[in-house]
Amino acid sequence: MTGEFELIRRYFASAACARAEGAVALGIGDDCALLAPAAGQQLAVSTDTLVEGVHFPKACDAFLLGQRSLAVAASDLAAMGATPLAFTLALSLPEADDAWLAELARGLDRMARQCAMQLIGGDTTRGPLSLTLTVFGQVPTGQALLRCGARQGDLLCVGGALGDAAGALPLVLGQRQADPQLAEPLLARYWSPQPQFALGQALRGKASAALDISDGLLADCGHIARASAVRLCVEQARVPLSLPLRGFAGDSEALRCGLSGGDDYLLAFTLPPAHWPALQAEWPQVCRIGHVEAGDGVCLLDDDGRSLEPTVLGYQHF
Amino acid sequence: MTGEFELIRRYFASAACARAEGAVALGIGDDCALLAPAAGQQLAVSTDTLVEGVHFPKACDAFLLGQRSLAVAASDLAAMGATPLAFTLALSLPEADDAWLAELARGLDRMARQCAMQLIGGDTTRGPLSLTLTVFGQVPTGQALLRCGARQGDLLCVGGALGDAAGALPLVLGQRQADPQLAEPLLARYWSPQPQFALGQALRGKASAALDISDGLLADCGHIARASAVRLCVEQARVPLSLPLRGFAGDSEALRCGLSGGDDYLLAFTLPPAHWPALQAEWPQVCRIGHVEAGDGVCLLDDDGRSLEPTVLGYQHF
Repeated sequence: MTGEFELIRRYFASAACARAEGAVALGIGDDCALLAPAAGQQLAVSTDTLVEGVHFPKACDAFLLGQRSLAVAASDLAAMGATPLAFTLALSLPEADDAWLAELARGLDRMARQCAMQLIGGDTTRGPLSLTLTVFGQVPTGQALLRCGARQGDLLCVGGALGDAAGALPLVLGQRQADPQLAEPLLARYWSPQPQFALGQALRGKASAALDISDGLLADCGHIARASAVRLCVEQARVPLSLPLRGFAGDSEALRCGLSGGDDYLLAFTLPPAHWPALQAEWPQVCRIGHVEAGDGVCLLDDDGRSLEPTVLGYQHF
Repeated sequence: MTGEFELIRRYFASAACARAEGAVALGIGDDCALLAPAAGQQLAVSTDTLVEGVHFPKACDAFLLGQRSLAVAASDLAAMGATPLAFTLALSLPEADDAWLAELARGLDRMARQCAMQLIGGDTTRGPLSLTLTVFGQVPTGQALLRCGARQGDLLCVGGALGDAAGALPLVLGQRQADPQLAEPLLARYWSPQPQFALGQALRGKASAALDISDGLLADCGHIARASAVRLCVEQARVPLSLPLRGFAGDSEALRCGLSGGDDYLLAFTLPPAHWPALQAEWPQVCRIGHVEAGDGVCLLDDDGRSLEPTVLGYQHF
């Protein structure tokens, strides 16, 4: 947090030495920020980096980039059942461009307000464009949703229709065009993911394992399977796909996006069946897409319940 | 924290879903780590980015880079009087090189053990080499050392001899050579700064303002002056300079390094005079180098107490 951080601080209303209310005891402007989780709460922490040309297109809109970056990072808090509190931003920039920074800050600020999160610090350095966000939330002690609790017989569920963000990529990259009624909902899912905080909090004490889908459904189910030492079975016919995605990409490509596309930032979780009726009543957008068995890995079942080879795995940077 | 983070996790002993003891309730391996500061403690948080070619030389030794990166970041905890707990690492790498990563991890691990800090998460992405570390410590509620409390009549002190790291730069960059008895202590100060945790903790309830010197003494004193709305006066003759620095760089360049060189990561703080005798007895390496007046900014006083023009300001990236 050195002097050059002024470039970003300028766009966020926060006075040095200002002691804030609530969980943020000290915000931007000193060597450290100070967080004070409420009594009986633990602090959830996650770090995400977004690099130009890898996680977002070169020369993209700064407002959209700011909005998306915070949503992507904050989604990890939703996956733990945490209530969002605050974030830090480490920004690497090839040059200081006031207009660009103002737009980035406006996008971050929009999403920060939506998520009720406060910028508490960071660093700005000269270098190729990238953003590293560390997000903070609080969760009652012992109630965080982990990846390691899935048990044989649990249901496998997701928080909504999958694949829209991956399906939007040809639009994001300007490789294809589409009618606004198809393009707009898909682009919104890419540029403005909505972390499922309320769903995550509702799953505390109910879901046996949870995460947010960032690498693609099959790859992320693999994380739960490994951490829980079980097998997750995905019924292909139950994977929820939106009408705009099917209209834009066609059924086959839509399914590929839903199974292997990343970037949706919806929750995937396992649930003892006894909790299903109440959850379904309260969260109609939640879909049951499979179940948990003894074994390991992820299996994909076709419409007749036969196991398919899941050749399409999630995106791995290395 | 996706699959590719395995690259770093491999070098750190930490099992997924392992519930650790103490303040780290959950380490690497889930969507978030969980921190539980002790009762009556706040969590101190700071983020630092180091970019190749800006904050460290291209093609530098990975072990030294790991060691230095964590020390630089953790120094902000010392400056708040916090006890270090944990850190996250966001690593951007042009390619995955196992031998290089093993050395980086060994350097991080060495400094982490020295500082009693645990790696709790992070992200690894493909991109130009840079490291963003977010560090966590705890400090008793209301006792953190801030920048805003300096008062007229306080003494200005530093935690030890200044300028060694800046003086070492020609050695670091291979532009000059020197006898090992001069080179080794200077290179150690650059590559392995020692965050002054114990001093910071000892200053709780005593120092009126504090920070760690990263941008250079004069520039960093400017931060205290601004936050506290006072003037800080530095007596040039009192600025402590090491024998190796004077031997290597000469008196004039040594003074320039001490006043304006960054990277020492020693504490600078203001202290009501009543605390000086006890502090001096317990911390003989601490030097009194000036005082606090009414006014603003930083003034530099020559050997006769006349004000000099501080033309040499700290490094600013933009």
